[in-house]
Amino acid sequence: MTADLLLRNVRPMGGAATDVLLRDGRIARIAPDQRVESGGMENVVVEDGGGAILLPGLVEAHTHLDKTLWGMGWVPNSAGPSLQDKIDNEREKRRALGIDPARQSARQVVQSVAKGTTAIRSHVDVDTVVGLAGVEGVLATRERLGGICAIELVAFPQSGLLVRPGTLALMEEAMRLGCEVVGGLDPCGIDRDPKGHLDAVFELAQRFGRPVDIHLHEAGLLGAFSMELIFERVRALGMRGQATISHAFCLGDPDTALVERLLAEIAALDIAIMTTGSASRPVPAVARLAALGIRTCAGSDGIRDCWNPYGDGDMLERAMLIGLRNNFRRDEEIALALDVCTRGGASVMRLPDYGLAEGCVADLVLVAGESLAEAVVAHRERKLVLRRGQVVARDGRALVTVP
Amino acid sequence: MTADLLLRNVRPMGGAATDVLLRDGRIARIAPDQRVESGGMENVVVEDGGGAILLPGLVEAHTHLDKTLWGMGWVPNSAGPSLQDKIDNEREKRRALGIDPARQSARQVVQSVAKGTTAIRSHVDVDTVVGLAGVEGVLATRERLGGICAIELVAFPQSGLLVRPGTLALMEEAMRLGCEVVGGLDPCGIDRDPKGHLDAVFELAQRFGRPVDIHLHEAGLLGAFSMELIFERVRALGMRGQATISHAFCLGDPDTALVERLLAEIAALDIAIMTTGSASRPVPAVARLAALGIRTCAGSDGIRDCWNPYGDGDMLERAMLIGLRNNFRRDEEIALALDVCTRGGASVMRLPDYGLAEGCVADLVLVAGESLAEAVVAHRERKLVLRRGQVVARDGRALVTVP
Repeated sequence: MTADLLLRNVRPMGGAATDVLLRDGRIARIAPDQRVESGGMENVVVEDGGGAILLPGLVEAHTHLDKTLWGMGWVPNSAGPSLQDKIDNEREKRRALGIDPARQSARQVVQSVAKGTTAIRSHVDVDTVVGLAGVEGVLATRERLGGICAIELVAFPQSGLLVRPGTLALMEEAMRLGCEVVGGLDPCGIDRDPKGHLDAVFELAQRFGRPVDIHLHEAGLLGAFSMELIFERVRALGMRGQATISHAFCLGDPDTALVERLLAEIAALDIAIMTTGSASRPVPAVARLAALGIRTCAGSDGIRDCWNPYGDGDMLERAMLIGLRNNFRRDEEIALALDVCTRGGASVMRLPDYGLAEGCVADLVLVAGESLAEAVVAHRERKLVLRRGQVVARDGRALVTVP
Repeated sequence: MTADLLLRNVRPMGGAATDVLLRDGRIARIAPDQRVESGGMENVVVEDGGGAILLPGLVEAHTHLDKTLWGMGWVPNSAGPSLQDKIDNEREKRRALGIDPARQSARQVVQSVAKGTTAIRSHVDVDTVVGLAGVEGVLATRERLGGICAIELVAFPQSGLLVRPGTLALMEEAMRLGCEVVGGLDPCGIDRDPKGHLDAVFELAQRFGRPVDIHLHEAGLLGAFSMELIFERVRALGMRGQATISHAFCLGDPDTALVERLLAEIAALDIAIMTTGSASRPVPAVARLAALGIRTCAGSDGIRDCWNPYGDGDMLERAMLIGLRNNFRRDEEIALALDVCTRGGASVMRLPDYGLAEGCVADLVLVAGESLAEAVVAHRERKLVLRRGQVVARDGRALVTVP
């Protein structure tokens, strides 16, 4: 039995200062702890929170652990402008650079933990060049680092599912190996066979009894068409609450009548939406999603990889970027951006007993700030990160190190 | 006579490591310095750059020094959604909160210097409530801190020029007190008299022989109309090269034919454009402006004020935000975002002898990074900031402190 841990003088969600007792990996009590004064503190480790804000662990609900270049030195980005350019560039670079999925995913997990992330949903490339090496590598990282961060894997046919024969069999094997979610992408744009692509994705999901998470960069009416095909399958297969649409740029279309029609279906089918708050694309309006009760999560997407040079996995900074993108200025709006990066992600990953209440799993992060809004806009170094009641990072550094 | 300063082992613009000798406030020589090896280093202070990247000082070309809440504790944002709501909210809050322009502008200048900014163009509110208190306060800060950062002031009729009678006389007095630039804003939206507003702004500029810098949030055709009125006046008054349009959201309009027509005029009249890279508004496309040779600068706009809770004055982070907004992924694109935050700002502020060449004024910043692009995306703590060859900040902290 491990000792209890008492977080002294912390402010849950930026509220009044209190003490939080952690026991057996859970939040046992949220209340001023008398024993501190009386000296009766045997078998209790005390951490002084110094009045910092206590949040539930940040949730990275969309990234690509297998292919970050984090820690590999700066690699100049040389991809062409189109989506297909970027996919082709990456498939080539992956081998040329020696991007080892186990090593790289471990580096990113440790970086994320240092930033207060306690759960990650990662898409992992499955294609006829990399085969299952990405999945195997990230599974090895989960085996190794699952104790400091929950990791959920999406088998992701980045280079297309049908257009590169053999991929579907590999996807099936990826699910067998331990991926929890069936991925897909741009049914029109990449495979150029939206019915075929989505039928294959949903068939696989049905076979394994697993949810789907589909990248949908397609904008405007094309994206709306692909979404409708997803709706049809979710409804026909009884998969309400088991689909996530990532990016969903078509929900940022200026045609609000179109968008509202799509949102109504999304709400009815309890489909979740993932946004990065992309500054350069039309994006779903987070406040509107919240008003409709649509589960919304956020992710960094790729961190410093062949697609994207930006990012360091900080989901508090992500909340800021979502705030900036959605023109959130009022405190309660900024709190909503944070909610997407915490509770929203947990609801998409179906993390059990997530939150800041007695009985919840003690996945927690402590950060200085006067208010929730200030914690987001300043996103200071994390003072303490806990996973299941154990300290996993302190003063901006994870306690676990990786090569 | 002050001692020479030798920056050892620095990489100008991310290039090869060399030494940079500073003398009498200027860059005297950029070359490996033999004296380090030979020991002949009398009257030379040596700073070891540790291979960090040397940049010319960052330029904050659009902010509002007089009204930041920096250091005043977190003030929840309660403004309504419209531009007029925000203007009214601020005018009320300014007095209720006791936002002292001298104290607050000093705080922001020191914060900016810590982040490597060596020149600031600040708009300063002039209206019938605040009167000239803002201008006087920021002038006091310039008197006090001009040695660590160049400060240029724009007399800014935030609450309207004509709609609040008496403002024009105050603007004239502000110019007389020492503002260098005549400001204006949204000729249609605020004063609701575009001809009257712009005639007044340009008449004042002519009278004082000073340039103009006009906030133009107006989007689409309305913004285009206001721009055309600006073009007409710049041309008629022979003010080529003496106007800046800030924000210029109408240049982000999807009607590219309209935008190209405006850009052609802007280039012909050598009008400068200021962008914050706003994620929530249509913005000018920085790469297109650069291709047309249009002088482009960047700013934080308000930092943690009644308008906007975000920001800490970091112009390297601003370059990242501009990169994200413009979908810049390739290294040379990210370098362009940085150029806007350095050389672009200097060209708008007409800073003499700005740059990283022998003979240039030694306004410099040193930051760790493998490449320019990495310096932008990671925007690490500034190792050293120099103004006219003197160290003004080190390891993320300004050497000057303010209350």
